[in-house]
Amino acid sequence: MKVEGIKVIAFDADDTLWVNEPYFREAEEEFCELLKGFMSKEESHKILFEIEMKNLPTYGYGIKPFALSLIEAAILVSKQEVPISIVSELIAIGKRMLHMPIELIDGIEDTLKELSQNYRLVVATKGDLLDQERKLIKSGLEGYFHHIEVMSDKTPMQYKKLIKHLDCNPTEFLMIGNSMKSDILPVLDIGAYAIYIPFHTTWAHEMVSDEVVNSNFKELELASELLNLL
Amino acid sequence: MKVEGIKVIAFDADDTLWVNEPYFREAEEEFCELLKGFMSKEESHKILFEIEMKNLPTYGYGIKPFALSLIEAAILVSKQEVPISIVSELIAIGKRMLHMPIELIDGIEDTLKELSQNYRLVVATKGDLLDQERKLIKSGLEGYFHHIEVMSDKTPMQYKKLIKHLDCNPTEFLMIGNSMKSDILPVLDIGAYAIYIPFHTTWAHEMVSDEVVNSNFKELELASELLNLL
Repeated sequence: MKVEGIKVIAFDADDTLWVNEPYFREAEEEFCELLKGFMSKEESHKILFEIEMKNLPTYGYGIKPFALSLIEAAILVSKQEVPISIVSELIAIGKRMLHMPIELIDGIEDTLKELSQNYRLVVATKGDLLDQERKLIKSGLEGYFHHIEVMSDKTPMQYKKLIKHLDCNPTEFLMIGNSMKSDILPVLDIGAYAIYIPFHTTWAHEMVSDEVVNSNFKELELASELLNLL
Repeated sequence: MKVEGIKVIAFDADDTLWVNEPYFREAEEEFCELLKGFMSKEESHKILFEIEMKNLPTYGYGIKPFALSLIEAAILVSKQEVPISIVSELIAIGKRMLHMPIELIDGIEDTLKELSQNYRLVVATKGDLLDQERKLIKSGLEGYFHHIEVMSDKTPMQYKKLIKHLDCNPTEFLMIGNSMKSDILPVLDIGAYAIYIPFHTTWAHEMVSDEVVNSNFKELELASELLNLL
């Protein structure tokens, strides 16, 4: 990967800057535990995922859609028999997730500090505007970024818009993230650069099976390795 | 009001470009009707509003927060006795609202068409990114706007950021909207221009009682009157 000419580096937020996915996994586990009197954990987990996928076009990404899907799935799993006290607990799970403390990904702050001297850094994230802004402020990383862009989805078209908006060319744009589907493939698709730093936990919806062969692409293990490359 | 030197005109979206608030009023009415076996409509309406206000810092604005608050309020109103079938109905109300057809405000399209010849037009709205983007596309008005800015809240600080981001000065910026609290007062506060076009229905949370006396301010009855002024 040749990385000359990069002007803007965009970072995904969840599981690239800070830990996120494990909180969803914990909430799913809690959901299955609460409903195990109605269905096996495996089955209720499957129904929850189906409901989330069905609701995605309507609700979009984030914790509020997740909370609404938890309730809808609980009704389905229990065949309308779920006690109201469990519905209250599911609402509480959503609120708790919205107030979760921020745990930074290893080495990310030092990496941003270094990179911000030579590049314009932005956050490019899916999900909920208020929630992502709040997390950025709580993270203490806000000062390193020129701009936060919350996107309703990460499609090639939306990346094109973002790059136009940032007043640069695709060849001057590098995206860094932990989702092949959202952070890497659509970015390579429009001729920009992408670096994949996988996180140990990935949502099934974000998984892809293809291997990437592209001279604009690189995979790293740790955020700090960016400093050897850029 | 002197309106020379304006470069960017920002429009609020809900109840400025298209009808919105009446859908919330209908949903509230439905909520009170569904729960009238537990409490008078007036009382349950009051509890719903209190829950919405309590949840605002956590959930932010929009339909998904509203749907979650409907469920939470139903549990409270019914003292945990609400049938699960009503919870399902409340979820359905939220989804229906997210798929509501767009009804444009009278005269808005012709007004935008004219203004877009001489000014840079943007949408500046609170609420949910996905939902507002979807409404803008469905409205058929997208082509008149240079940019859509979804803000987590409409504070003077957020308007300052927006104006900086649009690369103009406060004296070159005019905001048009139906909420004194969100569209007018914070904009006048930072020295920009604001035109208030009230809509017949206003959410209690957006109401203010003060009268505005400011040379950067004007109230109009209809969007089309903008064309006489600008």
